[in-house]
Amino acid sequence: MSNAINYPLDRKLRMALVGGAGAAFIGRVHATAAQLDGRAELVAGVLSSNPEKARLAAPSFGIADARAYGSVGEMIESELALPEDQRIDFVSIATPNFTHYEIARASLEAGFDVFCDKPMTTTVQDADELVSVVEKTGAVFVLTHNYTGYPMIRQAREMVANGDIGEIQAVRSNYIQGWMCGLKPDPNPPRGGWKTDPAKAGSGSLGDVGTHAYNLICYVTGLTATEVSASLRTYQPGGQLDDYGQATIAFGDSQLGTITFSQISHGRLNDLSLEVDGTKGALLWRQEQPNELTVRRTGQATQIYERHPPAAYMNGSGRNACRIAGGHPEGFFEAFANIYNAGFDDIIRRASGGVCDKKTCYPNVYDGAAGVRFVQACQTSSNERGCWKSLLQLM
Amino acid sequence: MSNAINYPLDRKLRMALVGGAGAAFIGRVHATAAQLDGRAELVAGVLSSNPEKARLAAPSFGIADARAYGSVGEMIESELALPEDQRIDFVSIATPNFTHYEIARASLEAGFDVFCDKPMTTTVQDADELVSVVEKTGAVFVLTHNYTGYPMIRQAREMVANGDIGEIQAVRSNYIQGWMCGLKPDPNPPRGGWKTDPAKAGSGSLGDVGTHAYNLICYVTGLTATEVSASLRTYQPGGQLDDYGQATIAFGDSQLGTITFSQISHGRLNDLSLEVDGTKGALLWRQEQPNELTVRRTGQATQIYERHPPAAYMNGSGRNACRIAGGHPEGFFEAFANIYNAGFDDIIRRASGGVCDKKTCYPNVYDGAAGVRFVQACQTSSNERGCWKSLLQLM
Amino acid sequence: MSNAINYPLDRKLRMALVGGAGAAFIGRVHATAAQLDGRAELVAGVLSSNPEKARLAAPSFGIADARAYGSVGEMIESELALPEDQRIDFVSIATPNFTHYEIARASLEAGFDVFCDKPMTTTVQDADELVSVVEKTGAVFVLTHNYTGYPMIRQAREMVANGDIGEIQAVRSNYIQGWMCGLKPDPNPPRGGWKTDPAKAGSGSLGDVGTHAYNLICYVTGLTATEVSASLRTYQPGGQLDDYGQATIAFGDSQLGTITFSQISHGRLNDLSLEVDGTKGALLWRQEQPNELTVRRTGQATQIYERHPPAAYMNGSGRNACRIAGGHPEGFFEAFANIYNAGFDDIIRRASGGVCDKKTCYPNVYDGAAGVRFVQACQTSSNERGCWKSLLQLM
Amino acid sequence: MSNAINYPLDRKLRMALVGGAGAAFIGRVHATAAQLDGRAELVAGVLSSNPEKARLAAPSFGIADARAYGSVGEMIESELALPEDQRIDFVSIATPNFTHYEIARASLEAGFDVFCDKPMTTTVQDADELVSVVEKTGAVFVLTHNYTGYPMIRQAREMVANGDIGEIQAVRSNYIQGWMCGLKPDPNPPRGGWKTDPAKAGSGSLGDVGTHAYNLICYVTGLTATEVSASLRTYQPGGQLDDYGQATIAFGDSQLGTITFSQISHGRLNDLSLEVDGTKGALLWRQEQPNELTVRRTGQATQIYERHPPAAYMNGSGRNACRIAGGHPEGFFEAFANIYNAGFDDIIRRASGGVCDKKTCYPNVYDGAAGVRFVQACQTSSNERGCWKSLLQLM
Repeated sequence: MSNAINYPLDRKLRMALVGGAGAAFIGRVHATAAQLDGRAELVAGVLSSNPEKARLAAPSFGIADARAYGSVGEMIESELALPEDQRIDFVSIATPNFTHYEIARASLEAGFDVFCDKPMTTTVQDADELVSVVEKTGAVFVLTHNYTGYPMIRQAREMVANGDIGEIQAVRSNYIQGWMCGLKPDPNPPRGGWKTDPAKAGSGSLGDVGTHAYNLICYVTGLTATEVSASLRTYQPGGQLDDYGQATIAFGDSQLGTITFSQISHGRLNDLSLEVDGTKGALLWRQEQPNELTVRRTGQATQIYERHPPAAYMNGSGRNACRIAGGHPEGFFEAFANIYNAGFDDIIRRASGGVCDKKTCYPNVYDGAAGVRFVQACQTSSNERGCWKSLLQLM
Repeated sequence: MSNAINYPLDRKLRMALVGGAGAAFIGRVHATAAQLDGRAELVAGVLSSNPEKARLAAPSFGIADARAYGSVGEMIESELALPEDQRIDFVSIATPNFTHYEIARASLEAGFDVFCDKPMTTTVQDADELVSVVEKTGAVFVLTHNYTGYPMIRQAREMVANGDIGEIQAVRSNYIQGWMCGLKPDPNPPRGGWKTDPAKAGSGSLGDVGTHAYNLICYVTGLTATEVSASLRTYQPGGQLDDYGQATIAFGDSQLGTITFSQISHGRLNDLSLEVDGTKGALLWRQEQPNELTVRRTGQATQIYERHPPAAYMNGSGRNACRIAGGHPEGFFEAFANIYNAGFDDIIRRASGGVCDKKTCYPNVYDGAAGVRFVQACQTSSNERGCWKSLLQLM
Repeated sequence: MSNAINYPLDRKLRMALVGGAGAAFIGRVHATAAQLDGRAELVAGVLSSNPEKARLAAPSFGIADARAYGSVGEMIESELALPEDQRIDFVSIATPNFTHYEIARASLEAGFDVFCDKPMTTTVQDADELVSVVEKTGAVFVLTHNYTGYPMIRQAREMVANGDIGEIQAVRSNYIQGWMCGLKPDPNPPRGGWKTDPAKAGSGSLGDVGTHAYNLICYVTGLTATEVSASLRTYQPGGQLDDYGQATIAFGDSQLGTITFSQISHGRLNDLSLEVDGTKGALLWRQEQPNELTVRRTGQATQIYERHPPAAYMNGSGRNACRIAGGHPEGFFEAFANIYNAGFDDIIRRASGGVCDKKTCYPNVYDGAAGVRFVQACQTSSNERGCWKSLLQLM
Repeated sequence: MSNAINYPLDRKLRMALVGGAGAAFIGRVHATAAQLDGRAELVAGVLSSNPEKARLAAPSFGIADARAYGSVGEMIESELALPEDQRIDFVSIATPNFTHYEIARASLEAGFDVFCDKPMTTTVQDADELVSVVEKTGAVFVLTHNYTGYPMIRQAREMVANGDIGEIQAVRSNYIQGWMCGLKPDPNPPRGGWKTDPAKAGSGSLGDVGTHAYNLICYVTGLTATEVSASLRTYQPGGQLDDYGQATIAFGDSQLGTITFSQISHGRLNDLSLEVDGTKGALLWRQEQPNELTVRRTGQATQIYERHPPAAYMNGSGRNACRIAGGHPEGFFEAFANIYNAGFDDIIRRASGGVCDKKTCYPNVYDGAAGVRFVQACQTSSNERGCWKSLLQLM
């Protein structure tokens, strides 16, 4: 029950956080998750785009005044000026979508590894550019599609890869929320103020939650999506971005994927689900009950796999993502921390002279680019009444 | 707690059943449901298209030898020859899809009311023809989309009609089964032998279960579907009909509906679900737990409405569809019987000189025609890579 | 999928119902359940202790005026005067507890088989007397502990008997209702008016629901309870009978059973549950989701057995109690009808010269006596601060 | 959404951990939970009773070699020798039951605050002694009955205190595990090796899980238990301690509590549940789905309160125990960390000259003593065939 690897690095990694002040909750999540297992320490940050707010927030994150920076530029310059044994190792980006690209690029080019929130960028061009920068720098780049960090999702992925459910036929993922109906978690300033601004968000529910569903499908099935047909809707009065939509995804000629995403469904909090139909069995997982994976095989009883490391049905991927005995619920923070841990493993691997795979157990820059391409293809498809659009990268 | 009306008819209605012998389970369901509340009596039938089998099966249905007919023609002729006070009142059709039209037409034209299984016909032309016959004869025609008989579905429909959840925005219905994966309920002869024969079924999962989902959406929301875009798949080796598919439905310019149907999902028995998003609230219902309706309103606790007649949250439609106190599960037969009861009410209303509404609380011939049109539109759309097809009747 | 046996009886059995008029819902349940499968016909009744009400209610049960009797004595006399081929075969007793004994005794002694509601009598003396009458007459006597009719309970019983879960260690059953908190299903006259009258009910929640839990434990495990320690409470202001309580049951020196029963738990409708711990596995069943049985074995996934006749995990008892394919919920009426069917099988067996076992797949007169003894022992134990009382019949 | 208070303490508290090396998982939980919110730092420890193991384990806990002690005595002496601004503030005790008393006493008397695992001691005498020491030293003493840290349990407690569900009538709590059936989480050395040794554990399932259930009942209801009647069983072959049992609890003359605890129920992981019946409503909570609290009121829909801070139904206690938005599951670590945070608040309060209440929002030394008394009373009662034993402290 450990998710550490044995590469030598007898110190905590040093983390910088961009974003996190004010009402935004995701910055706090990054800080907590990265430090959960004692493998990293938050030492620096640009906690707000407003320099004063950034400095005021620093103590509550345990960041010393001296390293509470007012801008990313200042942070990079100052950190590079520090001795190597004090300098940050990686930058975590928890800012509005439209700022990811510049911050990530600058951080990577300064030699830092990056953990970036999703969607990775707001344009395909920026995404492809970031792929180039990552390839050029050889840096570790982790996109925090955090739902891939849940033990039972890792379990599901290995089951599919092992052929436990046969050939995949169909896959469904819905991501249903309701927060746009009126109850914002924190009214002042409103959560997600920028999330409803087209210039800053790039898309609405599609990018905010639809990309998670798309990523989860690709992560678990390992299939390559080829085309998408989508229908987006804006139901909220005065809304400028989609707040509801569906996407039908073709994986070549056969497999069919369907995704529905919503931010207007009354009373639904964060209901992400995944169903995979294979020729030998089927899987069902729900994010709000993440410690269970339902496995069905025709003629057999429905099986509930619980997150329970010693059980014979658990595979290595599932087992290694657990911290504690079954029946003791693990949740969102632990899953998020699993993403960080996987990134840390690659950072240490690289620091030890090892080579990192292009296919990783965390969502990486290629997955990020695929997500941005998915957003663009869905938007174009919806504008053209559901015409199929390619999801493949044109080279 | 009664679903009878007060029209006078101091006798049981006399029923004839077409189909029901052999492995087919739906004929037995019709017989049990129609007689559940003591309002009808099964007295005649053509229990199989094979005259010998038809006669052999009669005793197990309580049908006397004299009225166990070998063909529908024989039944109609013989029944018409009986005195009016012995003659059947209605014909229940529980036969393969491709035979519905002829049997229904003949029965209606002979002056009998009809309860017909779904899909109503295998072609739009036959469906429209049947609409004409019903309009001409003035007969009662009930299509047994039985899921509309569940108390909590009736409750949901009245809630929507009353504006309890505001204006409808989006609606989702999935109907997921897995019986094609290998475990047939009765191997000899296989259940649904004709169900996989294109000539006899007309469609596969689309007509068999997709139409239920479509009907349920229309029944509960009262919306008029205008267009559909669909993608069908045939995953079973050697399959000639769709066994999986999705349909995106437009209701005019705004509301979006999504349906997924499957008969290849391992271990799923009969998982029909419905979710309705309105501006004031949202509903969720699952057929396999039919005694519950989940109602959500932003900022309020998730509410589980149980089928519990005296509860203040129950409306007349929900309450009247109950037979027994809450907590005592009612299931499939009771829902099916509610469809019959609603038809009986109209039969009695007509017999008493009353006029029946075109919009009924049971699925009628117009709903049947809409279902057949939906099948055809989905097939055409799928053949044309998801092009939108009209669902409206051309006049 | 049939629960009929092959003994010859080429006619429907003729049923008389005692009770059923007015607010009482259980009489209607008896009528519906007995006739569900077309094996019996309700032809006579004493629907109320008030002769006028009894006659007024007859048409709604399909009973002809001539056989709508004003008293049990009148019914017995009149029926015995009828030719044997018209005379009733059995009497169903759906009246307040305190009247069961006299009606059952009179019916049995007149030569009729009996289906009686529970608890069987209000005193142990009456119960033992009834055992003698049944043994003397050789009649079929069925006590409608209806929950034993659910397919997944029959499945569980056979699993235990087969050793599928090893030796039984512990068993728990709770039966939690809340109707005494204020919401009576039908206020005028209040449901269960007699249920709160000590002279008529004999006990409160203990006899009304606690006996069901006790019976279910004994039915599924086949264990012989030896002693009980109980604590009863009366929480409702002005209440004269227990409305809450617990019982700890010893089965010899080892196995322990625990039962909690309540009629004062807000919002709980009819939540009867059963958990059985064995050395090789454990079972869990809940009446409000009766189509599922949860089976657990250490180290294996939790298994949900669905009521699904062709599945390999189903045994004969479970399979034979099903009417319809899995995923199509069966409920309270179907379970109740399974009790009737099992009784009918014995009636036919006897009529055919066969001998009926003392141990039956329906609750019989011995189970009824055990239930009455349980009530008395719990009451005595509770009065003596939980002292252990014997549950064994003294001979 | 913060569970910090505003007392000044501009540094992290310094923590020492006793226990944690080897297979024991609870030490790691203490370390993670205490540091989760950045309010404490683990700086010292006696990670094993074996000095060599203790030192070897230190790096994996981030403890410097110099402060990885070989015994509690050595730790206390060394820490007291350090300057006050480096010295530990508190000691966390995660060792076998029989060692708690000595470690806690020594730590308290050395002037450290204490967080101690449960049960607090193995004898009532030790427990009472510890109460005296805490009262004498005025130290903060937190017993980690961690389930009281779940947000929805805090919510439930405030609801009861506010009268939201009226006067309490009955309460039920079951704690069902199955790990003794064979599947130990870590076979070498077996988890809980000492847990089955009477001398080291003091009791079996009763102390290990039964005390949690008892504590949870007292914590949520605020009732004072007066007497208990218990039946313990040892089902595992060769077992020397109880592995199953039930306890009936009287709270004065009226309220009744029932507890069942098991470690022999196949396939059950950590199924702790709580049900509270009040005159105005009822509550239900399950540890394995901790983000939900079910609230029922007769005649109203069943309400699912989700852990969702901005919802109007949330009270201050529930809201303050949340870290993240609803729908993002919080689990075991977060609940455990809430216990630590509440203790930290009192440590800071005292450091700031404030006075701590005898009744705290964390389980304290009085709760610990009540738990030990409960264990003793249940054991005595069970040995005397369920005789009622007092739970009140004799003064």
